[in-house]
Amino acid sequence: MIGGGRGAFIGAVHRMAARLDDRYEFVAGVLSSDAQRSRDSGSDLLLAPERCYTTLDSLLREEARRTDRIDVVAIVTPNHLHHTAAKRCLEAGFHVICDKPLTTTIADAEDLLRIAERTQRVLAVTYNYSGYPLVRQAREMIANGELGEPGVVQIEYAQDWLATPLEAAGNKQAAWRVDPEKSGVAGAMGDIGTHAFHLAEFVTGTRVTKIAADLSAQVAGRRLDDNGQMLLRFSNGARGSLWASQVAAGNENGLRIRVYGSKAGLEWSQETPNQLRFAPVGEQPRMVTRGGTGVGTASASATRLPPGHPEGYIEAFAQIYSDIAALIDASNDGRAASDGALLVPTVADGLRGVRFIHAAVESSKADAAWTVV
Amino acid sequence: MIGGGRGAFIGAVHRMAARLDDRYEFVAGVLSSDAQRSRDSGSDLLLAPERCYTTLDSLLREEARRTDRIDVVAIVTPNHLHHTAAKRCLEAGFHVICDKPLTTTIADAEDLLRIAERTQRVLAVTYNYSGYPLVRQAREMIANGELGEPGVVQIEYAQDWLATPLEAAGNKQAAWRVDPEKSGVAGAMGDIGTHAFHLAEFVTGTRVTKIAADLSAQVAGRRLDDNGQMLLRFSNGARGSLWASQVAAGNENGLRIRVYGSKAGLEWSQETPNQLRFAPVGEQPRMVTRGGTGVGTASASATRLPPGHPEGYIEAFAQIYSDIAALIDASNDGRAASDGALLVPTVADGLRGVRFIHAAVESSKADAAWTVV
Amino acid sequence: MIGGGRGAFIGAVHRMAARLDDRYEFVAGVLSSDAQRSRDSGSDLLLAPERCYTTLDSLLREEARRTDRIDVVAIVTPNHLHHTAAKRCLEAGFHVICDKPLTTTIADAEDLLRIAERTQRVLAVTYNYSGYPLVRQAREMIANGELGEPGVVQIEYAQDWLATPLEAAGNKQAAWRVDPEKSGVAGAMGDIGTHAFHLAEFVTGTRVTKIAADLSAQVAGRRLDDNGQMLLRFSNGARGSLWASQVAAGNENGLRIRVYGSKAGLEWSQETPNQLRFAPVGEQPRMVTRGGTGVGTASASATRLPPGHPEGYIEAFAQIYSDIAALIDASNDGRAASDGALLVPTVADGLRGVRFIHAAVESSKADAAWTVV
Amino acid sequence: MIGGGRGAFIGAVHRMAARLDDRYEFVAGVLSSDAQRSRDSGSDLLLAPERCYTTLDSLLREEARRTDRIDVVAIVTPNHLHHTAAKRCLEAGFHVICDKPLTTTIADAEDLLRIAERTQRVLAVTYNYSGYPLVRQAREMIANGELGEPGVVQIEYAQDWLATPLEAAGNKQAAWRVDPEKSGVAGAMGDIGTHAFHLAEFVTGTRVTKIAADLSAQVAGRRLDDNGQMLLRFSNGARGSLWASQVAAGNENGLRIRVYGSKAGLEWSQETPNQLRFAPVGEQPRMVTRGGTGVGTASASATRLPPGHPEGYIEAFAQIYSDIAALIDASNDGRAASDGALLVPTVADGLRGVRFIHAAVESSKADAAWTVV
Repeated sequence: MIGGGRGAFIGAVHRMAARLDDRYEFVAGVLSSDAQRSRDSGSDLLLAPERCYTTLDSLLREEARRTDRIDVVAIVTPNHLHHTAAKRCLEAGFHVICDKPLTTTIADAEDLLRIAERTQRVLAVTYNYSGYPLVRQAREMIANGELGEPGVVQIEYAQDWLATPLEAAGNKQAAWRVDPEKSGVAGAMGDIGTHAFHLAEFVTGTRVTKIAADLSAQVAGRRLDDNGQMLLRFSNGARGSLWASQVAAGNENGLRIRVYGSKAGLEWSQETPNQLRFAPVGEQPRMVTRGGTGVGTASASATRLPPGHPEGYIEAFAQIYSDIAALIDASNDGRAASDGALLVPTVADGLRGVRFIHAAVESSKADAAWTVV
Repeated sequence: MIGGGRGAFIGAVHRMAARLDDRYEFVAGVLSSDAQRSRDSGSDLLLAPERCYTTLDSLLREEARRTDRIDVVAIVTPNHLHHTAAKRCLEAGFHVICDKPLTTTIADAEDLLRIAERTQRVLAVTYNYSGYPLVRQAREMIANGELGEPGVVQIEYAQDWLATPLEAAGNKQAAWRVDPEKSGVAGAMGDIGTHAFHLAEFVTGTRVTKIAADLSAQVAGRRLDDNGQMLLRFSNGARGSLWASQVAAGNENGLRIRVYGSKAGLEWSQETPNQLRFAPVGEQPRMVTRGGTGVGTASASATRLPPGHPEGYIEAFAQIYSDIAALIDASNDGRAASDGALLVPTVADGLRGVRFIHAAVESSKADAAWTVV
Repeated sequence: MIGGGRGAFIGAVHRMAARLDDRYEFVAGVLSSDAQRSRDSGSDLLLAPERCYTTLDSLLREEARRTDRIDVVAIVTPNHLHHTAAKRCLEAGFHVICDKPLTTTIADAEDLLRIAERTQRVLAVTYNYSGYPLVRQAREMIANGELGEPGVVQIEYAQDWLATPLEAAGNKQAAWRVDPEKSGVAGAMGDIGTHAFHLAEFVTGTRVTKIAADLSAQVAGRRLDDNGQMLLRFSNGARGSLWASQVAAGNENGLRIRVYGSKAGLEWSQETPNQLRFAPVGEQPRMVTRGGTGVGTASASATRLPPGHPEGYIEAFAQIYSDIAALIDASNDGRAASDGALLVPTVADGLRGVRFIHAAVESSKADAAWTVV
Repeated sequence: MIGGGRGAFIGAVHRMAARLDDRYEFVAGVLSSDAQRSRDSGSDLLLAPERCYTTLDSLLREEARRTDRIDVVAIVTPNHLHHTAAKRCLEAGFHVICDKPLTTTIADAEDLLRIAERTQRVLAVTYNYSGYPLVRQAREMIANGELGEPGVVQIEYAQDWLATPLEAAGNKQAAWRVDPEKSGVAGAMGDIGTHAFHLAEFVTGTRVTKIAADLSAQVAGRRLDDNGQMLLRFSNGARGSLWASQVAAGNENGLRIRVYGSKAGLEWSQETPNQLRFAPVGEQPRMVTRGGTGVGTASASATRLPPGHPEGYIEAFAQIYSDIAALIDASNDGRAASDGALLVPTVADGLRGVRFIHAAVESSKADAAWTVV
């Protein structure tokens, strides 16, 4: 693991996710560039002291020498460090799991795509919300034609943790996210809008062709967007809108998708992830529950507990991790990947997310002009 | 009443709304242009046979002669007939209550504005959702600064009753709404989008300056929009989006508004109208209930029952009617209008709604170009 | 109307309910025993001054003389006055609509049953919650066997308005309800428990045979119960429990019923009355909506608006009123009553409610011993 | 681990729970009494073949000899095997984690209490719902007096998975639960009622003194209860009711508690575990969210993710496991246990649960006579 030392949020999530299904063992990391801090963080996590590295160089060099060398590296640093770390790991022959957004520039993402292809290593990107069983259920239902052709797609991701200028109050999580040097060209649209965008394409099985975006900084003095609305056009002709905000008081982590076709509509919300509302035209709306009656294989194979025993964020993240393990195993063995493994977001999805971010910023600068993704 | 004979929907609503608070008596109407049908409809409604007219002319002429003549005329015909009926009634000295949208053209709406001013008659437009107590509560809270300056406004109005081509199946309600001759330049955006637009301005107390709209006909063969998304810019700098759809399976009458400011956010949904969610930044979200703890005067004066005894659509509509009665009384007596009466949507709001519809259509034809409202 | 002058709550509800469907005209009343107050209250309500009576005697005497005499009297006084008023009105030949509970003693209720039978007048009791369309839908579904035999019945009615000793703070509504002289042997169990009891029998179509009740006064100093739990046994073998409380903070008017049979379960809650959750065994739970897809005739004939346009408490109360009108018409004409009229709670239901209240009090005094209703 | 081989449900849950916070390593087990099956199950779980035992005897004997011997044994067999297994493990010096109910007889539970005291080993019982952060928050709020004295306690646990005679259809999970030989004297009341009972005492911080229970078998032919209602009396004078059912169609795992005091009420439901509704008397109800504004230390220390990132059943179970680890560490080191460790349900709670089950059965046999717990 690169990043994720004491005090980090997403690093701990990655570790729990990796542990839940027992497909990974966490054995080495560059948890900090400071030697003492790296050892302390590693010690918390039961790493052997000699595998608590302080530089990527030393990790790659030393691990390459070991017979019990690592198989895969998780990169959980701020965004601007993703490209170099991923590139180095791939070129050293390791598979890579990278947090989103993949990179801060399109060129860097394209570079990683080429490297991954050349090295034939897995480069997975943790669009973790696609690991939720009922998100996969929704995707499967649409793919099976249960909605008819999707015609209207409403997606939103609303948070409120940046409703005040936390970055000025010493909050590190806030500080790097509002800093163009570390976050890239976008703020909220990169941090959470990219999740919403991935989910829209993942669930509908169709592509966003162009967007008209209106980004804004609602908190005075911010250089990056903390709120944005946009119109969406899809390759199949569907219309949609996307709203991403980190300043919407009363919203904790409100990722929500609604899709409507000629035969039915469906709705799913991340904060109540164990329910999917399905409304066939002319019938009573019904509740599809995780693990419950009538769920398909994509959902059932991504669930651990009976219905009514709520699974949550970590379980969905763990599903991505387990599917990545299956993908890596298949890659290592030269086998075809399983259905679950094929759902893993990889470098191509990561690149697409980066293109989306740049298209949103570009459109907004052009006063919401339609911009191709 | 003009329109509203047997089989009509909104006419019956107007009558119940008028009756609930006992401020009106229904005594005459042009319920149909067919004599027998007009008498039959009138008979259902306990009208005297001689006051069941078949033409607007005869109603105006005969009522003018009576000592117990009507005070106010409600116009509940399809949209294309509003202008003439309203104009004639106003000029004959009657106050008018007209369903929305006020007219099918901007010129006609402007004409009615001039006539209303000249005749000094009340011309109210039934943007009935503004009669809900908690909508007024929301407006009052924002006016009182409880949200800080509104910065983000998300509004949507989703229905599904036109998800299939009902108009081809002989449904009269559907038929005129999808017909440009009777409905005007817009379909869903005129029928329900205009409610959403009015609500956004009513609640926030600020004006939409321009919009970028993407309207579409999701059901093949429709000449008018049945779905539309748009970006909004407000005069105070706020950003928003609006979605109106009549083809979103699983949505019955899903009018919903969310407003976020620097100090708090709030959410209200028409299908659960007795609750208003209020989330101050950094505090636990709380539920404001109709008639409950902490509601202000605007809301309290528009409620009939204790909290927990749900009021609904008819009550909100009745509130508009009762406030119109107060406005008419004040107008007749030359007195200043009460607070509630001042909330009544009048011809100016009606004109604004017509401008919105045309701006939406114009923007959409220009590929979602920003268009001034 | 007897009772219901200025400041009263339920009188105004009765009047709105009577007005909504235009089946009643309010023309006379004993709104107060004080002459000035009676006239003032009557004047508010547009009564002719000479029909604002101050005693029941004068109302009965004077109305009997008029050619436009009243048809039916609504009694909305505190409980202890119901018996005398109903008795006198029935004996004078008027139909009667009486608020619940019908009387404060079983003997009085039995007396009214005999008088109603002898005089062949309608004596309706406003168990108004049975007027909700989806309550009737639930009853119809169970009667149609869609649940199989009901086996488990959970019913509750939770309020919080008496969580503090309001009666000591001068609240008149509270004062009479906690006073055994005016309320009868029970407090919450008589005021709201009796609604819950009626609903349980109405919806399931089966009878409660015996109960084991544990009533308590949670607010110190109260002489009557403000909270009670009980076990229920039904004639068909079903088991259940009932909870009624007026001290449960956070509950406004939380009447809720859940019924489970071998084939399905259903749930309905008064505060969201436009939805009925229906869960067939082994299928996805679905939402039945008022006026929506798949509703039966009992529900459809009790609804005024399309789905998504919420109806509420007044509409349900109005339904009872309109069905009483139909029952009275049928009675006057010697015709068979319509389906809706047959659902009207009458004196027999009123007597049953009084028996329930006394059984609850008796059981509780005997330390929750099983007591026959 | 004793039990929990291929096909078992709760064994897998225990293992995920143990793994999540990285406080346990799973190294040995009697996963089956069949040698091949034990090895196969162990192999799935990456156990060394020599530590896949087929008898408790061999596990205890062999592990005692190892330097890397196990520290703690988890018992996840059907109920009737708990007593012997726990007794033997404790006597062999191992700490024990046992699923609920602790034993099938009161004598056996008392026996384990004595043995645990004598051996000074930890015997934890997985009343896992007490691991939910907001359950602990509710407990803390009540302990802090935020509700005033709890006066009314409504608790329910409704499932539907036994609504049909699954046991006759070859379902193993169902088969042992409805079999008195394996399940003990109670069915649903032992399987889930005991969770509800523990939660009621855990949250309120007061004891149930006596109960009046009415148990029934709703599915024909069952020898044990699948549904039960009861009245509760608490040591502080509070009144309550408890409902446990496994035949309530439409309920997946509906554990829900509501507590009302003179100052406030609160509600929590297991299927939406990240929200706690808190309603102070005379104030607007507010939503307490896991990890959100205003949560106390008991809740905060039991949470892994920011608000809005849902935690669920496994996380709550993991919390119990991690707190048990802390309790064992403290026990081993002779240190005082931490706050979290002090919340761990132990043998005394297990005994109390067994007493509750027997009191419920005894009361029901005596026609719901009050019975001391």
